[in-house]
Amino acid sequence: MKYQFSARLGTFSSSAVREILKLTQKKSIISFAGGLPAEEHFPVAAIGEAFQRVLAAGNKALQYGLTEGYLPLRESICKWVGTKGVNVTPDDMLITTGSQQAIDLLTRIYIDQGDVILVERPTYLSALQVFRSYGATLVSVDTDKDGMDLDDLAAKLKQYKPKMVYVIPTFSNPTGNAWSLERRLGVLKQCRESDTLILEDDPYGELKFGDASVTYPSLFSLDQHPNGSCVVYTSTFSKTVAPALRTGWVMGDPEIIRHMARAKQAADLHSSSLDQQTLHQLMEHFDLAAHIEFVRKEYEKRMRQMADLLQEQAWPGVTWNEPKGGMFFWLEVPESVNTSDLLKTAVDLGVAFVPGVTFFAEESKFNNMRLNFTHNDAEGTVRGMERLSQAMASVLVR
Amino acid sequence: MKYQFSARLGTFSSSAVREILKLTQKKSIISFAGGLPAEEHFPVAAIGEAFQRVLAAGNKALQYGLTEGYLPLRESICKWVGTKGVNVTPDDMLITTGSQQAIDLLTRIYIDQGDVILVERPTYLSALQVFRSYGATLVSVDTDKDGMDLDDLAAKLKQYKPKMVYVIPTFSNPTGNAWSLERRLGVLKQCRESDTLILEDDPYGELKFGDASVTYPSLFSLDQHPNGSCVVYTSTFSKTVAPALRTGWVMGDPEIIRHMARAKQAADLHSSSLDQQTLHQLMEHFDLAAHIEFVRKEYEKRMRQMADLLQEQAWPGVTWNEPKGGMFFWLEVPESVNTSDLLKTAVDLGVAFVPGVTFFAEESKFNNMRLNFTHNDAEGTVRGMERLSQAMASVLVR
Repeated sequence: MKYQFSARLGTFSSSAVREILKLTQKKSIISFAGGLPAEEHFPVAAIGEAFQRVLAAGNKALQYGLTEGYLPLRESICKWVGTKGVNVTPDDMLITTGSQQAIDLLTRIYIDQGDVILVERPTYLSALQVFRSYGATLVSVDTDKDGMDLDDLAAKLKQYKPKMVYVIPTFSNPTGNAWSLERRLGVLKQCRESDTLILEDDPYGELKFGDASVTYPSLFSLDQHPNGSCVVYTSTFSKTVAPALRTGWVMGDPEIIRHMARAKQAADLHSSSLDQQTLHQLMEHFDLAAHIEFVRKEYEKRMRQMADLLQEQAWPGVTWNEPKGGMFFWLEVPESVNTSDLLKTAVDLGVAFVPGVTFFAEESKFNNMRLNFTHNDAEGTVRGMERLSQAMASVLVR
Repeated sequence: MKYQFSARLGTFSSSAVREILKLTQKKSIISFAGGLPAEEHFPVAAIGEAFQRVLAAGNKALQYGLTEGYLPLRESICKWVGTKGVNVTPDDMLITTGSQQAIDLLTRIYIDQGDVILVERPTYLSALQVFRSYGATLVSVDTDKDGMDLDDLAAKLKQYKPKMVYVIPTFSNPTGNAWSLERRLGVLKQCRESDTLILEDDPYGELKFGDASVTYPSLFSLDQHPNGSCVVYTSTFSKTVAPALRTGWVMGDPEIIRHMARAKQAADLHSSSLDQQTLHQLMEHFDLAAHIEFVRKEYEKRMRQMADLLQEQAWPGVTWNEPKGGMFFWLEVPESVNTSDLLKTAVDLGVAFVPGVTFFAEESKFNNMRLNFTHNDAEGTVRGMERLSQAMASVLVR
């Protein structure tokens, strides 16, 4: 049998993160690679109780559900985001299998072969993979710690007439940066004026560190146009509750949501409704806000520990910004070091990270690395950083 | 904001089934429309126990999982299908969000714009929707109660050089027919000789009625080529355990499975691992075979009841075959009756079905209807058929 795969097959390179994740499941490696939350803080008991409540409500809980998602969960999420200044109804929302699926479905209904999507430089690698698989042309916009460069954005909107801009303005993956309000408003204004759709990916927004009085309003909330909004916003319960429930959501203009729902119907009919109902019960009977506050503090502590260790190590020529939230440090090493090569050495020494190269849409840089600080406990982090130091010593000249 | 949707948007018509499902959730309508299993027979207690076992195993159960699916579940399924003469390893298998997602992922990696897919006449409407969304050209092969017509298949393989043939050989949706062994072997031979991939969709295979000694081996098992197989096979737990867990699987050549896994990584990273782990515990600690036998018998009883009622009604000019298994009766009404119009009358009278028109890839017929017999209990079925009789009376001349 001679198989004849589709042309788009070539775009599905396996993501480095997932391949490494596989590796680290097998070996006794300390991994700073995956974007994994801390297992020991999953609200296991509360999830168990929520699940029992779902089953107690009767057999109907196990029947097929709506493509759009379990209505009471959508209502709970509407209430939840309402406390953050976002006014939406369940019709403005679709439940997805993680926010990854939201990225896929929006691209499916919005992007044709050859359409241009602007992205941050660097940005989330698995979004790049989705965009490429639909034949999009990816163009990076210069991005610094305050967000997209507005002049470069203006130039590229003009030059490329993109259909979409993909951004992670609040605690970027991979950089941990948060956009300033000025940049948020600037990007919004430019995109609205040019009829360019913004996909705002916000898995980490709840994980904010530092001064509690500093807030980072989502682009979606700043746009204030649930009808006719130029922003489609997606988030997930994977970082705040647990990834195994694989539940995310997407909010936007009801016309867009309706089309995404039809695409979802073809893709998988609906996401696990057992998970959706469990999350709904959890939101009704569990203090999710308090739980998130607890996790947030714990992650800030872990971020601080890694920042201190990085400071201590003082690897020559290695720089980073302290993350404002989220899950990652983004390190730049001297240009002479290729971090993909370094990873091989590191894995031999029992520690893993993600080489920066995969986070660039084009004109890749080879001397960055992403370190996750949320998954390992304090002891694991110390040992992992020792191993990483050994790996660094093999390539850095003191 | 002026949205600029993709060209493929037009292919995502909302399926009639799902729209009707929405309607029937709201009103006191007796629905013969959706392919819904009987809620009262879901193994709720066993699922609850299985879930508790998952949580008891520790917090790691709630972490991110592998794109390929939870390995112990894949191992359990390998054992399960092993008892049916299928020898596969976990590497030949991918866990999906229902078998719907398997159809989507295979199409994504195999079909380019303009490629031809041959399908049965009639066939599963949501598969047609997926194929269309990837730009496939759909061509129907003449199909009778014994399966695809081998001469017509030969002619169309020659004329269209299709990349893929999509079939539901065992208890077809919508017809309830099962292919003869001769047709199974004939289709396999022709497809192998022409390097045409077969997608075998088998959600209903476990729900067999009639003489227990009659078996319907899957095309996949007959092909006996897990390496280099020309068959990709998908099934689901939705009909045998419960739909809410949204868990299906796909088996095929490891090269195809590997490519599908990469496409799945982009689509949603992985399916709910809580559901997957729950199903694994269920398969280990619950007599799934006995449960399926119980459900199978119950569905046969319901099929028989509806067959008797249809016989009794004896609507003039209305014909059907008794389903050999699965969930549906497929009725043909006189050509003067358009069943989409009839549906409006029926819903007004409090009963729903699916008009046949949506199950045709091309050259649609307008005088068929699909009736589900598994969802309603005996009393509901009687009342529903009474209402349907009223609707029929409005269009049929005695």
